[in-house]
Amino acid sequence: MTTPIQAQTLASVADIFDTKVPFHNLLGMDIKRYDLQGVEVEVKMKKDLIGNIHQQILHGGVTATVLDVVGGLTAFSGLVASRDDWCLEDLQQRLKTLGTIDLRIDYLRPGRGEIFTGTGTVIRAGNRVSVCRMELHNEKGSHIAFGTGTYMVG
Amino acid sequence: MTTPIQAQTLASVADIFDTKVPFHNLLGMDIKRYDLQGVEVEVKMKKDLIGNIHQQILHGGVTATVLDVVGGLTAFSGLVASRDDWCLEDLQQRLKTLGTIDLRIDYLRPGRGEIFTGTGTVIRAGNRVSVCRMELHNEKGSHIAFGTGTYMVG
Amino acid sequence: MTTPIQAQTLASVADIFDTKVPFHNLLGMDIKRYDLQGVEVEVKMKKDLIGNIHQQILHGGVTATVLDVVGGLTAFSGLVASRDDWCLEDLQQRLKTLGTIDLRIDYLRPGRGEIFTGTGTVIRAGNRVSVCRMELHNEKGSHIAFGTGTYMVG
Amino acid sequence: MTTPIQAQTLASVADIFDTKVPFHNLLGMDIKRYDLQGVEVEVKMKKDLIGNIHQQILHGGVTATVLDVVGGLTAFSGLVASRDDWCLEDLQQRLKTLGTIDLRIDYLRPGRGEIFTGTGTVIRAGNRVSVCRMELHNEKGSHIAFGTGTYMVG
Repeated sequence: MTTPIQAQTLASVADIFDTKVPFHNLLGMDIKRYDLQGVEVEVKMKKDLIGNIHQQILHGGVTATVLDVVGGLTAFSGLVASRDDWCLEDLQQRLKTLGTIDLRIDYLRPGRGEIFTGTGTVIRAGNRVSVCRMELHNEKGSHIAFGTGTYMVG
Repeated sequence: MTTPIQAQTLASVADIFDTKVPFHNLLGMDIKRYDLQGVEVEVKMKKDLIGNIHQQILHGGVTATVLDVVGGLTAFSGLVASRDDWCLEDLQQRLKTLGTIDLRIDYLRPGRGEIFTGTGTVIRAGNRVSVCRMELHNEKGSHIAFGTGTYMVG
Repeated sequence: MTTPIQAQTLASVADIFDTKVPFHNLLGMDIKRYDLQGVEVEVKMKKDLIGNIHQQILHGGVTATVLDVVGGLTAFSGLVASRDDWCLEDLQQRLKTLGTIDLRIDYLRPGRGEIFTGTGTVIRAGNRVSVCRMELHNEKGSHIAFGTGTYMVG
Repeated sequence: MTTPIQAQTLASVADIFDTKVPFHNLLGMDIKRYDLQGVEVEVKMKKDLIGNIHQQILHGGVTATVLDVVGGLTAFSGLVASRDDWCLEDLQQRLKTLGTIDLRIDYLRPGRGEIFTGTGTVIRAGNRVSVCRMELHNEKGSHIAFGTGTYMVG
C-alpha cells in the first residue's frame, strides 16, 4: 500500500522531472509512470536526437541520459518505499541530496526505433546509497542498452 | 609527424562531429581541437542544458554525452596514429564501425560553470578495441567528472 | 544441438579451468557445469578466502575472481555457439586470445554462506568482443554480487 | 601534519590488512606503505597466482583483489585525513562500515613481472561515500591495470 505522503511525493517528483527540468524538455523526455512499483521514462525519436546521420540512430548520450534519469527515479522511489512513516519535509530534504555517484552504460545494439522506454530496479537499497540497474528498449522490444548506477539518496 | 591522410581524416571527422551530428548541434557542442596529440570538446552552459533548476547545474546526461564523444574521438585518433601508411578508404571504413561498447562516468562535483571542456587519453590501444579515460573540467579548472570508455575501432 | 567439436572444446576448456589454472586451485574453484546452455562455477567457503575476520565473510577479491572466470567462460561458450562449423584449431586459436578488457562488480550484500555459485549470460555477442553479465549467489539463494565484463574473444 | 590518533589508526589498519586477513595471507599481499600521503600494496609473483599457464601471467582476479584492497585503504585514509579531531572510537566504528559498493577494473596488458604494486588516489571524497582510482604496475614500471572503485566509508 502506498501512503498519501508517498503518493504525493512521487507525483510531485514526476511532475518536476516531466515538465520542469530544461534538459528533459530539450530531449522531449516523458515520465510515463512513476509509482512504488516502477518507473517508465520515454523519449521519442526525432531528428535532434540522432548521433549518426547515415544510420539515423539515437545518440549514445541520449541513452545515457534516459538511463541516468531512470536510475535516479528508481533509487528515490526505493527510498520512499523503505518506510511508510516519512514526513513530507524529510522526503523533500532527501530529494535535494539525490545525485548520481557513478553511471555505467553497456551499449548492446544501435539505437534504432521510434519510441525508447527506460525502466529500472533497485539492486542494492540503502539509507544513504542505492544501486540500480536500468534497461532501454525500443517500441519493438529490442534491448538497446543496459545501465547500472550508484546514487546518493541521503 | 602527421601524414596528410591522417590530418585530412581527423579534420573531416572533426567537421562531422562539430557541425553534422544533430544531437551535438542541439547541445551546442564544439570540437575545439582534434589532432594526433589530443582532443578538446567544449560545451557552453545554457538554460537548456540544466538538470537542476534550483542549483542551476549541468545535467549529468550532458556530462555523459560530452565524455562519450571525447572518448570516441580519442579512441579513433589513437587508431589513426597507430600507423602512418593508412589509406583514406580504410580509415573511412574504420570510422563507420566506431562505437561505444561500454562507458563509466564518475561524477565528482556539481556541474557549475560557464564553459565545460572534455579531454581524453587512450589507456589501452588496440586494432579492434581501445579503452580511453576522459575528464570534464569547467573554465576555472574545477574537475567535474571522470569517464572511462571501451570503444570498438575496427 | 551441440556438435562434437563444440562439445570437445568446452569439455577441454572446463578441464583446464577446473584443474590446471594454479590460482583456481588455490581458491578451490570448481567448474560444475560448462555447456552451450550455461556455466556454473563454484567456490566453497574456507578460512583462506575470508576477507573480514570479525564477520567471517568472503573477500571481495574472491567474488571478483569467480565472476571474471564465469564471464570469460560465458563469452567463450557464446562464441563457440555462434557457429556449428568451427574446426578445432580455430577454437583453440580463439581461446588463446580470450581475455578480459574490463570487469565491473556490484557488491550487493556481505559474502556470507558455505557455497558460492557464479552464473552468467552473454548480453552482447560479437566475433571480436562480447559483453556478459554475471551473478554470484550463496547456497541459500542470497544474491551476493552482480558482475559485468567485456571480453576479447578473437 | 598527522595527529597521533590518525597515525595510530592507519598503523593498526595496515597491520590488520597485512597480517590478519586470511585471503591477503593466501596471496602473500604486503602493505608496504600506509599513511595520509599514500598507500602501496605489493604482491610478488608466485606459481599459485598464475592465471594462464602458457603465458605465466598473473590471474586477473589477483589484479582485481589488489586494486580493491588499495581502493579501500585509500578511501579510508582519505576519511581519516578529512578531520584532525577524530577520536579513536569513531574511526574504529567507521572502519567496520568500510566496504566496496562497486569496482571497475580495466586490464591494460598481461600481468607479466615479479613484483606488482598497487597505488591509489581519492577522486571524490565524502563523509559517507568515496570514489578512488587505483593503478597496478610491475617492477619495471609497466602499467598492468587501472581500477575505479566506490566505497562506503560511514
